[in-house]
Amino acid sequence: YSTVYWLGKDTLRVSAALFAENRRRLCEGLRAKQGLQPKSLVLLQGGEQKQRYCTDTDVVFRQESFFHWTFGVTEADCYGAVDVDTCKAFLFIPKLPESYATWMGEIYPKEHFKEKYALEEVHYTCDVSWTDTKNATNFRGVNTDSGSVTREASFEGISRRLLKTDMELEVLRYTNRISSEAHKEVMKHVSAGQKEYEMESLFRHYCYSQGGMRHTSYTCICGSGHNSSVLHYGHAGAPNDKTIQDGDMCLFDMGGEYYCYSSDITCSFPANGKFTPDQKAIYEAVLKSSRAVLAAIKPGVKWSDMHRLADRVHLEELIKVGILRGNLDDMMKVHLGSVFMPHGLGHLLGIDVHDVGGYPEGTERIDEPGLKSLRMGRVVQERMVLTVEPGIYFINHLLDKALASEQQSGFINNEVLARFRGSGGVRIEDDIAVTADGVELLTCVPRTVEEIEAFMADRNPEKSFSPTVSSEKF
Amino acid sequence: YSTVYWLGKDTLRVSAALFAENRRRLCEGLRAKQGLQPKSLVLLQGGEQKQRYCTDTDVVFRQESFFHWTFGVTEADCYGAVDVDTCKAFLFIPKLPESYATWMGEIYPKEHFKEKYALEEVHYTCDVSWTDTKNATNFRGVNTDSGSVTREASFEGISRRLLKTDMELEVLRYTNRISSEAHKEVMKHVSAGQKEYEMESLFRHYCYSQGGMRHTSYTCICGSGHNSSVLHYGHAGAPNDKTIQDGDMCLFDMGGEYYCYSSDITCSFPANGKFTPDQKAIYEAVLKSSRAVLAAIKPGVKWSDMHRLADRVHLEELIKVGILRGNLDDMMKVHLGSVFMPHGLGHLLGIDVHDVGGYPEGTERIDEPGLKSLRMGRVVQERMVLTVEPGIYFINHLLDKALASEQQSGFINNEVLARFRGSGGVRIEDDIAVTADGVELLTCVPRTVEEIEAFMADRNPEKSFSPTVSSEKF
Repeated sequence: YSTVYWLGKDTLRVSAALFAENRRRLCEGLRAKQGLQPKSLVLLQGGEQKQRYCTDTDVVFRQESFFHWTFGVTEADCYGAVDVDTCKAFLFIPKLPESYATWMGEIYPKEHFKEKYALEEVHYTCDVSWTDTKNATNFRGVNTDSGSVTREASFEGISRRLLKTDMELEVLRYTNRISSEAHKEVMKHVSAGQKEYEMESLFRHYCYSQGGMRHTSYTCICGSGHNSSVLHYGHAGAPNDKTIQDGDMCLFDMGGEYYCYSSDITCSFPANGKFTPDQKAIYEAVLKSSRAVLAAIKPGVKWSDMHRLADRVHLEELIKVGILRGNLDDMMKVHLGSVFMPHGLGHLLGIDVHDVGGYPEGTERIDEPGLKSLRMGRVVQERMVLTVEPGIYFINHLLDKALASEQQSGFINNEVLARFRGSGGVRIEDDIAVTADGVELLTCVPRTVEEIEAFMADRNPEKSFSPTVSSEKF
Repeated sequence: YSTVYWLGKDTLRVSAALFAENRRRLCEGLRAKQGLQPKSLVLLQGGEQKQRYCTDTDVVFRQESFFHWTFGVTEADCYGAVDVDTCKAFLFIPKLPESYATWMGEIYPKEHFKEKYALEEVHYTCDVSWTDTKNATNFRGVNTDSGSVTREASFEGISRRLLKTDMELEVLRYTNRISSEAHKEVMKHVSAGQKEYEMESLFRHYCYSQGGMRHTSYTCICGSGHNSSVLHYGHAGAPNDKTIQDGDMCLFDMGGEYYCYSSDITCSFPANGKFTPDQKAIYEAVLKSSRAVLAAIKPGVKWSDMHRLADRVHLEELIKVGILRGNLDDMMKVHLGSVFMPHGLGHLLGIDVHDVGGYPEGTERIDEPGLKSLRMGRVVQERMVLTVEPGIYFINHLLDKALASEQQSGFINNEVLARFRGSGGVRIEDDIAVTADGVELLTCVPRTVEEIEAFMADRNPEKSFSPTVSSEKF
């Protein structure tokens, strides 16, 4: 495959072979399925160009993820098909009106797209008799987080997205490398008096100008101080608009995406570059659980056990800090860990930041506090890419509920806890690829207290990376 | 009104009085309408938080424009109502589940939103009997550009959006000032060898970090060389991914938005900071038409006449350059101007970049080349805000059509034209507010050839604006 996607300069070259390999895996999976009709076709609808509400303002297009995984096509309003027997790929593109050449640019012939994406056949959607497809299986399902309708939840063939090929891993390494550098850029420039959104802006700018990432994988979370305990901070109701204060911990959860492949990284650090003893205690508790989990992950372990391991380490450490007291096993029984880490330990990562397939068909989430928020319920397998993102947060309404709970309140030393209330939270989030006997860490940012303090000590807020010198990285 | 929207630092403070005034104008307009029932309510649905396709990845929320104009509320999933008799404003907010406090942040009481937006009443959507609203008039219509269904096209009351109040003008001055500075930042940093998207990224970063603009008003158009003739370059099929070359003209059409108020600015300049004689000739032709139009605009003139004026100046100048020859009036009769400027001269600007109400109910666009693309068909009125964006482009398929046209080909000197083919195009786009006897120019960027060359002469691509010093502006 001489065909590559490349945004120039130091950005990654991605071969069209990546998607041919995905199609091969898709067909292989389908052929292994019982009851598949001969001459079957997989038909996928690509993303449509949308406008803001009732206006003519285009929303910046981002390809639909299943379609991207299968074809790697960046244009809007396409369809695609794969012949399961032969793996031949068919792309169906809109026949553009002449006015397109005036407003949108050159109208390329079908042959252009055939070469651009190394596909077997390209046709115009208007030239196809779509009635042939009315027997197509309906693969729609429901996303367990958002309730949105998905096209494919129970489509076993496409759950190949679970495991990443070497070529996909290469892209995920790249998105992690650029996003890690962008986080470091932010750490180099953060200071009291700035708005949280200035850091979001700097992150986005680094990812796009240095890494070709027009989109982030999700809305940037830039919480400082108390806001660092708001797990999904940064949305329209809380748009990263607080002024960062000198004593604040920052929790910045941000990831860029390249050619639709995601990253998902959280760095927690003091805005002024120096941990207080209390900040250090909580940070190191989370780091300990992060490192314990990373050391334990390997093919065959249950992901829910990794979540429980993180909970256990957090509770142990919170006992040492003095916030908790009593027997660890008894704490585990009453799910005390979920008071401090109400979210799941981590999730599959790929084309979507919360990648599909976390639960095998017919299985359900464990109905326990904390674990019910775990987006991945499988046994860990080689070539899975996952986030490992333990955290400890001081969320007032959860603390109040725990203190009001007969089962939980006895474990809590309210006097010590009071010292930590309002301080926010700490999350340490790395992306990993599961190897034959452990993990490959894709994220590379300062992680220990010493590393962070040393890295931030020689900050120079005046000196930004030059937008014209892409090789100058910190 | 002590209630203000403000993103800190040097960003603009916008009083809630702006929206109270809009509601007053809305009610006044409706009460003047014949046949309005007493005790009428205007009911508007705010924007909904959407996800990417079938995933749980939130799209960054941007409020629906009519709702924003009326209430200034930034949160998703609300409704609002205005009592036409009294101008009282009612906001209906979702009753949030307890889990919101863990994931999204503090759950504020209704009183919080009443104060935050200075509204008369706030209720939960679930507490309202919505059956009362079934007699509401259906105000839906169709956007003439996108074909999307709009809520309000024929709703005369809301066409008050046509004319801007002093408070709205203040916001539009701000969005223009910040976006102008961002364009200048780009001009200071552009150079051959860079990717067009690096300039998009720098623009967005400046607007957001210095101006609090999380969104741009539309997808950034960063065309260099031949791409500068692609009117809506920058979309998914042409995503600003060309490398800028030394001899290129750049046409950068970009605008940021603050609190949903838009800007829309185009700067055209040579990538290396120095015009060639041919580049200068075309640029000055466009500047001449821009300045002729700006001098002619005042209340009472027909916007379509302004478009024709721009065409006429372009043709005059293209005769001087030698590309055209013959009688100017004859050229106008065969619409030769539209070969070089196929788009409209400009459009209304406000909360939407192509703001509503360009054509009064019952009127249609003029069915002539060029004029059929004009988004505004009204007589100019004081307090309209408009773009003035003449351009001359060398678009091969339009030139070929003109050369094949019996009516048009005789006017074209193909030998001279050949020299300009492939060079792209020039657009000069300013935003203006119509005053009692002329215009207020909202955009402030270098415009003459001399200004541009002088401004770009002391470029320093190494020195970016500091993301931490908001007062340091060029």
